[in-house]
Amino acid sequence: MLLGRVAGTLVASRKEETLEGLKFLVLKQVDVDGGDTGGYVVAADAVGAGLGEVVLYATGSSARQTRYTHERPCDAVVMAIVDTWEVGGEEKYRK
Amino acid sequence: MLLGRVAGTLVASRKEETLEGLKFLVLKQVDVDGGDTGGYVVAADAVGAGLGEVVLYATGSSARQTRYTHERPCDAVVMAIVDTWEVGGEEKYRK
Amino acid sequence: MLLGRVAGTLVASRKEETLEGLKFLVLKQVDVDGGDTGGYVVAADAVGAGLGEVVLYATGSSARQTRYTHERPCDAVVMAIVDTWEVGGEEKYRK
Amino acid sequence: MLLGRVAGTLVASRKEETLEGLKFLVLKQVDVDGGDTGGYVVAADAVGAGLGEVVLYATGSSARQTRYTHERPCDAVVMAIVDTWEVGGEEKYRK
Amino acid sequence: MLLGRVAGTLVASRKEETLEGLKFLVLKQVDVDGGDTGGYVVAADAVGAGLGEVVLYATGSSARQTRYTHERPCDAVVMAIVDTWEVGGEEKYRK
Repeated sequence: MLLGRVAGTLVASRKEETLEGLKFLVLKQVDVDGGDTGGYVVAADAVGAGLGEVVLYATGSSARQTRYTHERPCDAVVMAIVDTWEVGGEEKYRK
Repeated sequence: MLLGRVAGTLVASRKEETLEGLKFLVLKQVDVDGGDTGGYVVAADAVGAGLGEVVLYATGSSARQTRYTHERPCDAVVMAIVDTWEVGGEEKYRK
Repeated sequence: MLLGRVAGTLVASRKEETLEGLKFLVLKQVDVDGGDTGGYVVAADAVGAGLGEVVLYATGSSARQTRYTHERPCDAVVMAIVDTWEVGGEEKYRK
Repeated sequence: MLLGRVAGTLVASRKEETLEGLKFLVLKQVDVDGGDTGGYVVAADAVGAGLGEVVLYATGSSARQTRYTHERPCDAVVMAIVDTWEVGGEEKYRK
Repeated sequence: MLLGRVAGTLVASRKEETLEGLKFLVLKQVDVDGGDTGGYVVAADAVGAGLGEVVLYATGSSARQTRYTHERPCDAVVMAIVDTWEVGGEEKYRK
């Protein structure tokens, strides 16, 4: 999994019908120190994440292992909201 | 998922027989601010996207979770046409 | 899918037994304008592509969705021979 | 698989319910000579790895082939703790 | 698939139990002309490859389509030992 910050939302009214009701979040990728990598991904939200929160997202077939994304054409899902992480004994982020 | 702009189409008359009838779109990848990344992908069209539209595409096994691509050798699918997205409270695109 | 040009062939007599009879093509990756990206991939041939032809190839589990590659340890397959594609109304390639 | 060094841990109390009980490790990616690549990944721990240990991790659907990660939205798992590896007859690391 | 040269071996005594008996090879990635790309991967050996040999390896779920790796948390497998390949009519390697 990688870290992302919820930067915004995306609306798509015309889509594969199985995607109806899914919320799409725009995530900016976060590096191991909490900084911005410049990358992004659009992910389905399985946990009710809010703007500005740091989240974990899973990609590929693993993104379909939630109730919301099962058997849907979705390759990225927010599956956890991060409380804190530390690297080398140093706390890098706290919610 | 990532964002792409429908830049063109591709024709391939000789192909795996299960791909018959599938429409291939040439997508130019779009960054989080709506600009061009320089990358591209050829994706099957599951939603009837038109030239110039910004779309969401899914890759890998998730690209096979549509009626058009099920059990076919296809690793990228356009599964939504984007209406709008915003980042940091700023609208980056409106159809 | 991505575009590749059939640049050569590869022979491997000692291999997983399920791969017996599969033809391996060396593909040079092609960019959206038809140029060389510098990248390559070795792909199984599901369509009888010839040297110099531009093809579409699929990767990952999607590469196993052909009669030739089903349940085989193969992660890239040529699934279409390209006739033509266009970008922004300009034809980039014609076979 | 790639090599990583266990650099820290991550806590996420709000998550997909099937992830309950899974331990998340922050891995710094290691190159073939044992150095730091600058990359990272957050992986589930299937082997009880400790801080500072060098591990092997698997990604994608392969990350779900353990008792801890089966059918869960998890795309990276630590599946082995490395004792030693050598390249060109030279030992690069010993635990 | 991509090309790799068998550069060494890796030992991991503590691992997911289903990995017992699997041999891990350290592969240095090889470019289309036979040179070194600088990249590496650790792959399971399904064909008995020896040090210095050039091999083909498959990644992702395709890496689990061998008798040795079936349903195991393994995302890269050596599935063929290369005899020779050619590009543009020029032989790039012969075993």
